[in-house]
Amino acid sequence: MNHPWDGPLADLGCAAALVVADSARDPDLAHFVGAAHLGQALLVLPAGGAPRLGYFSAMERDEAVATGLELAAPADLGLPRMRREGWPEPLTVAAAAGAALAACGLRPPARLALAGHPAAGVAVEAARQLERDGWAAVAGDGLLRRLRKRKGAAQAAAVRRAAAGAGAALRAVAATLATARVGRGGELSARGGRLTVGRLRAVVARALAERGLGQPAGNIVAPGAEAGVPHSPGDDDRVLRAGEALVVDLYPWSAPCFADASRTFCVGAPPEPLAAAHAAVREALELAGSQAVAGARGWDLQLAVCALFERRGYPTVASAPETEVGYVHDLGHGVGCELHEHPSFRRRAGGEGVLEVGDAFTLEPGLYDPEGGWGVRLEDTLLLGEEGLENLTPLPYDLDPRSWVG
Amino acid sequence: MNHPWDGPLADLGCAAALVVADSARDPDLAHFVGAAHLGQALLVLPAGGAPRLGYFSAMERDEAVATGLELAAPADLGLPRMRREGWPEPLTVAAAAGAALAACGLRPPARLALAGHPAAGVAVEAARQLERDGWAAVAGDGLLRRLRKRKGAAQAAAVRRAAAGAGAALRAVAATLATARVGRGGELSARGGRLTVGRLRAVVARALAERGLGQPAGNIVAPGAEAGVPHSPGDDDRVLRAGEALVVDLYPWSAPCFADASRTFCVGAPPEPLAAAHAAVREALELAGSQAVAGARGWDLQLAVCALFERRGYPTVASAPETEVGYVHDLGHGVGCELHEHPSFRRRAGGEGVLEVGDAFTLEPGLYDPEGGWGVRLEDTLLLGEEGLENLTPLPYDLDPRSWVG
Repeated sequence: MNHPWDGPLADLGCAAALVVADSARDPDLAHFVGAAHLGQALLVLPAGGAPRLGYFSAMERDEAVATGLELAAPADLGLPRMRREGWPEPLTVAAAAGAALAACGLRPPARLALAGHPAAGVAVEAARQLERDGWAAVAGDGLLRRLRKRKGAAQAAAVRRAAAGAGAALRAVAATLATARVGRGGELSARGGRLTVGRLRAVVARALAERGLGQPAGNIVAPGAEAGVPHSPGDDDRVLRAGEALVVDLYPWSAPCFADASRTFCVGAPPEPLAAAHAAVREALELAGSQAVAGARGWDLQLAVCALFERRGYPTVASAPETEVGYVHDLGHGVGCELHEHPSFRRRAGGEGVLEVGDAFTLEPGLYDPEGGWGVRLEDTLLLGEEGLENLTPLPYDLDPRSWVG
Repeated sequence: MNHPWDGPLADLGCAAALVVADSARDPDLAHFVGAAHLGQALLVLPAGGAPRLGYFSAMERDEAVATGLELAAPADLGLPRMRREGWPEPLTVAAAAGAALAACGLRPPARLALAGHPAAGVAVEAARQLERDGWAAVAGDGLLRRLRKRKGAAQAAAVRRAAAGAGAALRAVAATLATARVGRGGELSARGGRLTVGRLRAVVARALAERGLGQPAGNIVAPGAEAGVPHSPGDDDRVLRAGEALVVDLYPWSAPCFADASRTFCVGAPPEPLAAAHAAVREALELAGSQAVAGARGWDLQLAVCALFERRGYPTVASAPETEVGYVHDLGHGVGCELHEHPSFRRRAGGEGVLEVGDAFTLEPGLYDPEGGWGVRLEDTLLLGEEGLENLTPLPYDLDPRSWVG
């Protein structure tokens, strides 16, 4: 039987991949166990064999069984004795890994591709112990990212749920902004007083909570000058104003996957640079979408978007890699068990930079002027299926929130 | 000047601790940067010196400045060139770490205590490169956990916010249960139809969203037999019933800290074993709280609680380490940037098993009978201050939800 890890393991000369995880929230484990409620665990992906999950807490047996994977229970891993004797964590991990590998019929000497996100010190010292035991340990994070690139049905469904939540929350933000009143000095108010970033965050949180979704990685609600710096999260106490840009970038999570969507709003008449930038970004997103076909390289899409922006007179990372004005970031990123994963839209990407059927990713062109005090970003989450590209965040793009509710 | 890491670094013979983090959500970094919205970053804690934050994205400069730490910008770390030349991730991390260490006046040869939670393969290969560069890398996760044990004012405030949210959500659950109607077969219903685990989860999510809190690690709403296994999260579709136990264990997050609280409910008359177990657990929680003073060992509290339960006729982990009936887990755990951290209540704990002023932790005795189809857990989050123990989750303990709202 062929497993998706057989080829990559052969490329690395490895007998197995070994995922060491503190919990099922580790993306390298989540890809295989979904929303299971598991703490510390190991996963072995043997070349030519079925995955085996080693779980560390006997209390989690029902959860482990529900994954449908071959199992190694705590006793199979030798954990009760190690705990009685007070073994240090790295030696415990190394010995438990040896037992899980043996359960898959593997014995040293052999090479292992190491993955997961345990404490760095545990990883380094467990790898040293595995080497003393006769194993060779090489980096397996690239292999796991490669496996995680293609979404199965369960993960695509999770990305879809998260994307629908992002859409509902963006609509709720638009509805709130659409009813805002403009007071003196241009400050916005709504029922209950001045309209702040914090109040919009509460609107977002309620919309997501209604759907059972969370925001484990936070969100961005960035007005004015904060919108001009792509990663500024926005200050809760900031009162919103008419005529300024407001970037709302939401990345909710529906176990075990993220989605990611952004819209830019402006209550009242937008200043000309903002309106022009918004139109250019809208055009760039359309261009990127039209080129996002199976086999396309993310970097080629990035270059196409840079060329479009350059023609409109904006600096871009293609011509000025360190620019903080104009188009200053990547075109997109894969979404899945991690918020940022493959496919990659970077220049240096290898196979992970090629779009394939089964990929879930964002496209998110933006233009920024931190000195000018504005930024625009439009971002969709898309799924590349057999039938082509599907937009999982089919929402208006308008700056004017009233266009969203009309 | 004395820093809390000077002594532990001296114990390890290290010139510095090096935290390698994928984002500010890494607990080893979050302890120092709080709620900062940072992606990949390094933190150097030099023996006798001030911490220095190396951040990887120029877009995050405002966030980095706001931490108040000494900084090393992406250009200081040499990142633009490495990115142009397409360096592999482990070599990038190792070279950036070398630059951040140099900015602290450190040069090889010297020993580093490695911490953070990067991909295991990156940790292992970056450590190998650091060793080729003349550094020696040892595990620093224990050191970081030791530093994270004592909460400063900002973290205590975050635990307090999260604990207040857990309390509000448990009260909302009790209010919903208090108005439930008992239908045929004992099934509970409320406005909108049958009362399921999923509906209670929605009540929790709304209560937390109102306060801007999330549940990045999920929650437990476990009825009947699921309550009998401490880590079972509860099945969303399960309809609740009168006369059964319902364990609600919430661990919300308020950047950058968790809190953790549990209550057990029963609508209608509880079966005798459940009522007796609830009374014993209540007594155990009180006993543990009375002994949780500065200088006490967590394991001694655990033994005291085991003795109490044994006197009542329940098996415990003290007499039967692998038991799945009776008292089957640790008495508590520290809470902070991680949901489970120091202080420890385990037998083998060293200094991390001693309660100190500044510790935030849970006490959570419980009794379980998976075959009998019930479990009881009562859990508070507590802060050990100069003035003694403060309960951050001062809520009723009653099984009957009507007692909560009366």
